[in-house]
Amino acid sequence: MPAHPLRPRVVALMQQLQESICSELEAIEAACGSSLRFGRDRWERPGGGGGLTRVIADAAFLERGGVNVSEVHGELDPAFADKLPGDGTRFFATGVSLVLHPQNPHVPTVHANFRHIQRGNTAWFGGGADLTPYYYHQQDRDEFHAVWKTVCDRHPGVADYTRFAAHCDRYFYLPHRQERRGVGGIFFDNVVVGGDDAHAEQVFAFVRDAGEAFVSSYLPIVKRHIDTPHTPEQRAWQELRRGRYVEFNLLHDRGTVFGLRTNGRTESILMSLPPRVRWAYCAEPVEGSPEAELLTILRTPVAPE
Amino acid sequence: MPAHPLRPRVVALMQQLQESICSELEAIEAACGSSLRFGRDRWERPGGGGGLTRVIADAAFLERGGVNVSEVHGELDPAFADKLPGDGTRFFATGVSLVLHPQNPHVPTVHANFRHIQRGNTAWFGGGADLTPYYYHQQDRDEFHAVWKTVCDRHPGVADYTRFAAHCDRYFYLPHRQERRGVGGIFFDNVVVGGDDAHAEQVFAFVRDAGEAFVSSYLPIVKRHIDTPHTPEQRAWQELRRGRYVEFNLLHDRGTVFGLRTNGRTESILMSLPPRVRWAYCAEPVEGSPEAELLTILRTPVAPE
Repeated sequence: MPAHPLRPRVVALMQQLQESICSELEAIEAACGSSLRFGRDRWERPGGGGGLTRVIADAAFLERGGVNVSEVHGELDPAFADKLPGDGTRFFATGVSLVLHPQNPHVPTVHANFRHIQRGNTAWFGGGADLTPYYYHQQDRDEFHAVWKTVCDRHPGVADYTRFAAHCDRYFYLPHRQERRGVGGIFFDNVVVGGDDAHAEQVFAFVRDAGEAFVSSYLPIVKRHIDTPHTPEQRAWQELRRGRYVEFNLLHDRGTVFGLRTNGRTESILMSLPPRVRWAYCAEPVEGSPEAELLTILRTPVAPE
Repeated sequence: MPAHPLRPRVVALMQQLQESICSELEAIEAACGSSLRFGRDRWERPGGGGGLTRVIADAAFLERGGVNVSEVHGELDPAFADKLPGDGTRFFATGVSLVLHPQNPHVPTVHANFRHIQRGNTAWFGGGADLTPYYYHQQDRDEFHAVWKTVCDRHPGVADYTRFAAHCDRYFYLPHRQERRGVGGIFFDNVVVGGDDAHAEQVFAFVRDAGEAFVSSYLPIVKRHIDTPHTPEQRAWQELRRGRYVEFNLLHDRGTVFGLRTNGRTESILMSLPPRVRWAYCAEPVEGSPEAELLTILRTPVAPE
């Protein structure tokens, strides 16, 4: 399986994104008075390849944040391979994946992921970014989406904001709660790199642009809310909502379930889980409260595929 | 599908077990100075039947405890039905299921479940009880197992402690952590009620005996540790270990996953989750500590089937 010609540049991009995103987040920590930095844990995968996991915990801004890069190769389980584009069981995958859980319940949790996968002679990209607030602010949602729409619009023929945003809403959905996980963003998968070089360059340019846009989609929202004081009740609400994040990731998230079932590195996969979480029986917020407003938004049905 | 002749007595048994177990637990709360009682939430299942969920939260002994009885009937999904004994898609199921999460990290979490299922003309029982300590005490483990061995030994030809205990260890296992969830107990499934009445009576007598033994398997352990003082560090350890409980229930527990995927009552299914939970990256206890001792026990490989 010869490597796709893009591979060296994709591998370098994922590493650059990890470094630059961690640096920008550390700058926010510094501005909040914390000198904590993201750690560096390099790991190897027994089946081939490895990665670099960068985690920060109990800092001033982030209660837990993880930014993971992996570059793995080997043989796919045949049953799983059949669900993917391409042919055969040889594969290569590289990507950057991040989840940020802030301390302050007024600052949303965010997730982003950009990945490149090759199976046999077929290579494709997937990824996206989505926002999970604890309190709903229309401006946050709109500005977050606006960044991703602008990125998509810069790459016509490759990216389609309307389709990617709808895909995101459908994917980050908890059927047993009849709730979306958050207020969406974009999600794309199986964006196959076609045979001709011009198309490959276009797809790569979109993924690079999206990865480099991440900080600009999230940091303005952080800055707007990070100094808002919060009460123990708002903190408890954040911890309850984090329970939904755990439910989604362990019950539905394809990357999490696939990683755990294929002997991925458990601590790198589960760095996505929130640091402190709460479950309570039939905990419904008071009608008309800001907490109830969020639920109304998340429970608004999403369009079927 | 005519009801199995045992059904009325089984339905009554499950309700009696729920009442008596909740009463005994409320007596411990009272002894600890709490007047909190288990609530009573009666619910209906759209497809047929319903249940009674009893939950207590933030009491003196129990941080969260749930004892649920359900009695449901209807049509099985054909793909799921094929995994069960019996014939056709008509089914009936009743059972009692409980999970108790104590406040004090020196008191173990416990789970028990006893259920009766009928598909077409075949009826069977399943269930068991297992203990999940945060600190390992050989005496707790041994006395808990001794109760269940005694119960099994009273029902030769129906119950087999050695087989049921091994099944429990294999079932409550987290492959991605290479850890058992706890120190075991018994777990049995598909104990089919044969055609002749004498055998049916024997099976019923075992399940009734097991259900009635639950309190005696757990309360002595509670009483031994409930007055042991604990530190914030021991509490943090309990919350980290509770994360493993969440991982097991959402990734592997058949009842949980089946319930959620078949539109069961979410709040009754997820009452099993712990109230306050923590995840931390690569959190390993200090060598030689009581926390490390527990992990050594849980990581001792279990015998393959």
